[in-house]
Amino acid sequence: MSRSPDVSTLTLNRLSLYLRSLRHLQEQGVRRISSQELAARFHLSAAQIRKDLVQFGEFGIRGVGYEVDRLCLRLSELLGLENERPLVIVGMGNLGRALARYLHFNTSPFRVAAGVDNDPDKIGKRVGTVVIRPSSELARVVRESRAEIGILTVPAAAAQENYDALVAAGISAILNFAPARLRVAAEVPTKTVDLRIHLEELSYYLARG
Amino acid sequence: MSRSPDVSTLTLNRLSLYLRSLRHLQEQGVRRISSQELAARFHLSAAQIRKDLVQFGEFGIRGVGYEVDRLCLRLSELLGLENERPLVIVGMGNLGRALARYLHFNTSPFRVAAGVDNDPDKIGKRVGTVVIRPSSELARVVRESRAEIGILTVPAAAAQENYDALVAAGISAILNFAPARLRVAAEVPTKTVDLRIHLEELSYYLARG
Repeated sequence: MSRSPDVSTLTLNRLSLYLRSLRHLQEQGVRRISSQELAARFHLSAAQIRKDLVQFGEFGIRGVGYEVDRLCLRLSELLGLENERPLVIVGMGNLGRALARYLHFNTSPFRVAAGVDNDPDKIGKRVGTVVIRPSSELARVVRESRAEIGILTVPAAAAQENYDALVAAGISAILNFAPARLRVAAEVPTKTVDLRIHLEELSYYLARG
Repeated sequence: MSRSPDVSTLTLNRLSLYLRSLRHLQEQGVRRISSQELAARFHLSAAQIRKDLVQFGEFGIRGVGYEVDRLCLRLSELLGLENERPLVIVGMGNLGRALARYLHFNTSPFRVAAGVDNDPDKIGKRVGTVVIRPSSELARVVRESRAEIGILTVPAAAAQENYDALVAAGISAILNFAPARLRVAAEVPTKTVDLRIHLEELSYYLARG
């Protein structure tokens, strides 16, 4: 993988949106699209699209636009989606099990390769394509499954301990669903999805009327 | 509810973190805390805490800090958490069902009050505290359950249609999990949680090494 320029999270997230939109077009057999059309069809900004893509040397052709196949490939490469990205889920409660099933569909190259839990009643049970293994075997599970991304779906009180265990097991990036403020490892990109915070944000707007 | 000053999403999300941290302290019987201590214990920035809170007239007392109970109450009021906020889940697949169970615990004042789906096999089944009802009855379900926030957990292809149905049913805010670019209603605050985009962001960092 070649080095890419530094890109903000917001830009990265927009690149994901562009890629998703372009893939829809690909399925529909569209071969070329202008930034204006792309913007209009997917409620995006044409100027923003041009600005974002030009950073990666993608200019489009005046009067013709972007080649859909080529741009899909380029964005896939940039986002590192050409290689499989196995996931391990730590915490196979309601949310962990739902993600194990949910991430099974249409989420290539992301694939749930393993799931662990510390509840003896859960161990050995099959969820989607994985059989739940004991949390105590996490390092081995990560090694065997070649998981790169850890998904943390444990209760808040257990979050830091399991986060640290994922880091110690050699995981390369973590998506955290636990509603906890973590001490994160500098070398392990970590993203938190905090549902309560999103709900409180909406609540604020409701309270304001 | 009194009107509050305009606040950015980032600030709002930090207020949620402060409130969560302060509630931990409350449980531990802590009555006063300085911004420095609060920052140190929860990996926050003391300067940022002071800057955020002063916007709402919360100065803390020099050498003493903030009164924990008072600040919890103030932040709860600000975030509109004093009133119950019933939720309706649209799409009771894996993710919808998991959220119905997950949001049942420790998420006061948010409470899943209803769930709908268009799959006849699901209708009438109980998940957590709710019995799944038909999507065709959404307007009635919203009215009866007094749901204020809609949680959208349908496949991408069905997202816009169900979003529009929630708006038409009179819902006041929407948390969207469908990986789709929605045409949103200006009067309905909408927040999208897009797991694929988060995974792609992590993938980008992995690809860069």
